[in-house]
Amino acid sequence: MKLSHMHGYIAALLQVIFFILFCIFARYHPDADARQHPLPQNATKTETQMVKYKSDDVWAHTKSYPMFQDVQVMIFAGIGFLMTYLKRYGFSAVGLNFMVAALSVQWAILVNGFFHLKYGTIFIDLTSLLGAEFTAATVLISFGVLLGKTTPTQLIIMTIIEVPLFVVNEIIGRTYFGAVDMGDSMFVHTFAAYYGLALSLMLYRPDASTKKEGSSYVSDIFAMIGTLFLWVYWPSFNGAAAPGDDQHRAIINTYISLIACCFSCFALSSLIHKDKKFDMVHVQNSTLAGGVAVGTVADLMIHPWGALLIGILGGTISVLGYTYVSPFLASRFRIHDSCGVHNLHGMPGILAGIIGCVAAALATEATYGPSLYEIFPARAPPEGSPDLERLQQLLPDLQAGSGRTAASQAGSQIITLGITIVISIAGGLVTGLILRLKPFAALKTDELYEDSKYWVLEENEEEEEYEEVRLKSIVNIPMDTSAENGTSK
Amino acid sequence: MKLSHMHGYIAALLQVIFFILFCIFARYHPDADARQHPLPQNATKTETQMVKYKSDDVWAHTKSYPMFQDVQVMIFAGIGFLMTYLKRYGFSAVGLNFMVAALSVQWAILVNGFFHLKYGTIFIDLTSLLGAEFTAATVLISFGVLLGKTTPTQLIIMTIIEVPLFVVNEIIGRTYFGAVDMGDSMFVHTFAAYYGLALSLMLYRPDASTKKEGSSYVSDIFAMIGTLFLWVYWPSFNGAAAPGDDQHRAIINTYISLIACCFSCFALSSLIHKDKKFDMVHVQNSTLAGGVAVGTVADLMIHPWGALLIGILGGTISVLGYTYVSPFLASRFRIHDSCGVHNLHGMPGILAGIIGCVAAALATEATYGPSLYEIFPARAPPEGSPDLERLQQLLPDLQAGSGRTAASQAGSQIITLGITIVISIAGGLVTGLILRLKPFAALKTDELYEDSKYWVLEENEEEEEYEEVRLKSIVNIPMDTSAENGTSK
Amino acid sequence: MKLSHMHGYIAALLQVIFFILFCIFARYHPDADARQHPLPQNATKTETQMVKYKSDDVWAHTKSYPMFQDVQVMIFAGIGFLMTYLKRYGFSAVGLNFMVAALSVQWAILVNGFFHLKYGTIFIDLTSLLGAEFTAATVLISFGVLLGKTTPTQLIIMTIIEVPLFVVNEIIGRTYFGAVDMGDSMFVHTFAAYYGLALSLMLYRPDASTKKEGSSYVSDIFAMIGTLFLWVYWPSFNGAAAPGDDQHRAIINTYISLIACCFSCFALSSLIHKDKKFDMVHVQNSTLAGGVAVGTVADLMIHPWGALLIGILGGTISVLGYTYVSPFLASRFRIHDSCGVHNLHGMPGILAGIIGCVAAALATEATYGPSLYEIFPARAPPEGSPDLERLQQLLPDLQAGSGRTAASQAGSQIITLGITIVISIAGGLVTGLILRLKPFAALKTDELYEDSKYWVLEENEEEEEYEEVRLKSIVNIPMDTSAENGTSK
Repeated sequence: MKLSHMHGYIAALLQVIFFILFCIFARYHPDADARQHPLPQNATKTETQMVKYKSDDVWAHTKSYPMFQDVQVMIFAGIGFLMTYLKRYGFSAVGLNFMVAALSVQWAILVNGFFHLKYGTIFIDLTSLLGAEFTAATVLISFGVLLGKTTPTQLIIMTIIEVPLFVVNEIIGRTYFGAVDMGDSMFVHTFAAYYGLALSLMLYRPDASTKKEGSSYVSDIFAMIGTLFLWVYWPSFNGAAAPGDDQHRAIINTYISLIACCFSCFALSSLIHKDKKFDMVHVQNSTLAGGVAVGTVADLMIHPWGALLIGILGGTISVLGYTYVSPFLASRFRIHDSCGVHNLHGMPGILAGIIGCVAAALATEATYGPSLYEIFPARAPPEGSPDLERLQQLLPDLQAGSGRTAASQAGSQIITLGITIVISIAGGLVTGLILRLKPFAALKTDELYEDSKYWVLEENEEEEEYEEVRLKSIVNIPMDTSAENGTSK
Repeated sequence: MKLSHMHGYIAALLQVIFFILFCIFARYHPDADARQHPLPQNATKTETQMVKYKSDDVWAHTKSYPMFQDVQVMIFAGIGFLMTYLKRYGFSAVGLNFMVAALSVQWAILVNGFFHLKYGTIFIDLTSLLGAEFTAATVLISFGVLLGKTTPTQLIIMTIIEVPLFVVNEIIGRTYFGAVDMGDSMFVHTFAAYYGLALSLMLYRPDASTKKEGSSYVSDIFAMIGTLFLWVYWPSFNGAAAPGDDQHRAIINTYISLIACCFSCFALSSLIHKDKKFDMVHVQNSTLAGGVAVGTVADLMIHPWGALLIGILGGTISVLGYTYVSPFLASRFRIHDSCGVHNLHGMPGILAGIIGCVAAALATEATYGPSLYEIFPARAPPEGSPDLERLQQLLPDLQAGSGRTAASQAGSQIITLGITIVISIAGGLVTGLILRLKPFAALKTDELYEDSKYWVLEENEEEEEYEEVRLKSIVNIPMDTSAENGTSK
Repeated sequence: MKLSHMHGYIAALLQVIFFILFCIFARYHPDADARQHPLPQNATKTETQMVKYKSDDVWAHTKSYPMFQDVQVMIFAGIGFLMTYLKRYGFSAVGLNFMVAALSVQWAILVNGFFHLKYGTIFIDLTSLLGAEFTAATVLISFGVLLGKTTPTQLIIMTIIEVPLFVVNEIIGRTYFGAVDMGDSMFVHTFAAYYGLALSLMLYRPDASTKKEGSSYVSDIFAMIGTLFLWVYWPSFNGAAAPGDDQHRAIINTYISLIACCFSCFALSSLIHKDKKFDMVHVQNSTLAGGVAVGTVADLMIHPWGALLIGILGGTISVLGYTYVSPFLASRFRIHDSCGVHNLHGMPGILAGIIGCVAAALATEATYGPSLYEIFPARAPPEGSPDLERLQQLLPDLQAGSGRTAASQAGSQIITLGITIVISIAGGLVTGLILRLKPFAALKTDELYEDSKYWVLEENEEEEEYEEVRLKSIVNIPMDTSAENGTSK
């Protein structure tokens, strides 16, 4: 059998490997462990240490659970349905999205866990599951570039490679460079887009634009299910990990950016069309760009007008991208981008990174109060500084930082953006080199954007037969079909 | 270019104006501001005052966030999909709903803010965004009356006019007459319905009922997405703004009203049909009337049986409205109501207002305890009364009222209902006079209920060509179409 | 008129009866009652006692409200859309689901209430509504077995019979045998499946498999709306009733089980197909089996690897069930199962019960700490035991139990599973005997899986006429149809 039909075996094997790794490494975080304070009397030293992790507030996790669920809806229903816009690829869009998400989440729990092992253990709580969700989002965004052009086997291999790259890149940015990126516009959106685009470049085929690469009236409405749930729940995506008033601000900023983005998209979509018509591609995708563009600075003091402006910019870039950049990339750079991920996640993600740099450069204690040093921990004064003592009187939990300046923080932001682009493109190219190897067996032209190769479509024969009978009756070829002429959809 | 194709320019201009107004007026509410207690040392007097607004509980906003998100789903996915029932107007239903909502929200933040300026500033927090949502709901309900019969330009102008009228009417009712209306059945539903109906009267055209004004099998199922999310999340709509046990009661009352309404609608829908068949129009719309009918009294002590009865009444009125009242309005009063808004929001909204009057007349301290004076603040005893002292021992935060009687409160409720109807009808008539001006260029008959005028429908040519090939092959006109005969949906 | 068209009358009658019973019995729970502490001075003795029920934390209910709403979405949108997979039964799937849910909830509030009367009163709060939701889920799962094969009248009668049986069975298991079943895998899923299957056996008809018993491309995508919302919100179903860290664990376990189940289903669905294709039936249904299989032990210390393994087992059983067991049941046992409920709820439910037995047998204080006795209250030491004193120093609220051993608890679990199966099958057989009585008038063969008998389908004539015109034009029968050839979906 060809590798292109081996996805069942590969998936089964991976599931077994995940099970073994969960057995060895995964344990409940103490917050989710039934062995509460006080400890059982036969507590080992390790258990005593573990209990220190336990939050005082046993209900703390429920505070973030509704936002976690919003993100879940975005990943599974939102992204899944957004991609059903292709007229003959609906099963794959919503189905393969489901499969890849379930794979990504398991693999992300493990890979994230390996990079943050404590006592040789991966501790699982709602926060680690949320982290896995963000990783899954990354993989699914990259999938959007390749929609309709890969086999399930290729998608599985891509996932296995992309997840560790994502984790490494995020650790470099957050831990080593101290970059902030509350809504993950750099770590998720930018990374996912350029990884996918580089991969698409390597898998380039001149026949990628076929008649099937289009939507139908019904498939475009299905896609709006995805758009609207993504749009509505995006403030949860950008704010789920933020504490206290930062979260309130992340919600407000994301919301304002999205409404301005949405309305701007409608304006621009109409303005650039010769007959002033709206284009569903913009409504489905570009209306979301405001959520990406505001992501990095979602929790910062960008002010409502700043959020509004970012939304307008995000929407504008995205609509122009669909109209001018995507065709250019396809024709000049041989990069075919099925969903226009570059316009929804790529360019708005870079915009977000640049805005993050500017916002970091402008951040002062006058604007943020002492919470400046909570939001940018590296800017906190160093150990022993009298300034640190002053601040710790206001914020007892504040930790010493490295006394970084605003300019230095801004530099870290832009370096992180650059590293993200480099790692994602390099990773995408290497992944593409692997996936174009002969055993992976690329799809034939008429298998592109087409469910029938990998999905049971029982209806076909039956439906066609039924149609034929009905049509013949209509054009007066005598035949008794009265009973069948009911609801013909 | 005609005004009917100017929507892109108008929208772009509005977005720029909104940006300028946000720059001048909009700031974060102190709860969402990073400058926490303690104040920076260089605090101005104004800043010191502002901090007084900051809630003690910095997490307070997250308590209402899940309900806020439920309402968001209702506005964007719920109302949007509910209106996709028209067979050739799906893009417009879900798309223009999206556009109008994004416009309404921005405009409502500003207009609401102008009426509640503090220090010349519009303070933005989750509560002000929630208020903007309710305003958007109002505009979208009015849109339902006109569905399929307006140009985007007309919708934009309508929004710009309706939002301030809504705000003024609500301030008159709530502030000047002290009316209570927890679920906004008067201020949102009744207002929206009669504004839209009056507008529809002015835009009357004898050719409004065309063949395209119908549903298809698939579009009716799409509409059910809207119905079910509206139905499920309605308790959040009616309860989002309620405090403490009032919120618990608002949830219970709305829920019970909805289940009784739903079941009654199925019963009645079948009973009034000659073959005892169910009608999707009733299932999609009338099942929601219980949420409207119970809105004004959602937080009051109406008892579970009261909620159940209100649900039955709401559903009954709505089903009968679709069957008897709508055709009558159309033929006698020349009011064409695309979605039957009068049956879902108009009559149930008036019912809600009347029930609110009755419930206010019956409210006593024996039934409500001291919380009577929190729910009806005007009924609290006036300053200096010994009764006020007694109550303040029980409820330290209680403010002096005007010692209003139950009858007087009931009067205020019914006056508020009357004013709402008058303002909405007058506003709708004036708006209609404007929108029928010649530059707005009404749609031609075959452009009614039809996406193609304002939406790019790429599929048309391609799809028809493909269909033609397939059909010819079926009826035995020789041609090679084997590769194309896959999934024909 | 035949009983098969009496559903409108029966429903109206039931709604009136429910109203009367609500008047007599239903009151707000003190938590939702406006008469707060302190009591009005004229408080009766009963009122004084009632107030004791009032929670100290007036916001307590909002903590569970988001989970309650998730369950609501599952019941109304999730199950409803999951069943829209049939190509000509979409109105009935989503519509009758809506009707039966609204009926079940009202009836369940009353029946549950009658079994837990206090002061002759049914107290209504969010918890009692949540209980009614679970009961409704049970009825709707049974409906899945019979989808497309019953009249509305039969469904209503089934609901009236099944709800009390469900309540009695749950009381036997929970109260008399002290069985634990956090996610209701035994009480909801197993019960519902075998009740429905037994009923289906009694209603067996040899012509149950018709051409209409299939999906279309579009109906399969509609069904995925149901699948994805069920899948995403399932942790809320399994965790809604759990306290403290138990809830956190229930969320984690359910989530991990579901992701492993989902990925395993894709693997296996492909592996067992001759061309290695995925089957939508598995993707729509079997991916959810992990939520059922982990239900009984969702809050127990099964460890992340245990949850993962349960997910794999659940998914595997379900896919194999669709492939091998369902055809076998239909041919050998004359049990026709429209949605394959046996594979999603039946076998995974039994698996859950057995896993619950094993987990109970293995539960020790070393693994659970003192919370063992909160999770398995019967295992708490009896009154007067010195062990109880020790434990009450750690957990002041702990109540005395019967000092049950782990083995005895395991026995109670398996006995409860057995009783559930016996009661459900017996109940289903009796219900079936009733529903096959002549007055109920079974559907004719061509009325199976067909909306047109019970739903107004206005489109038919119009749509067909339009199609005819269009087709004739395409095959060159001269006619002017230019205006009509727009959006042809």
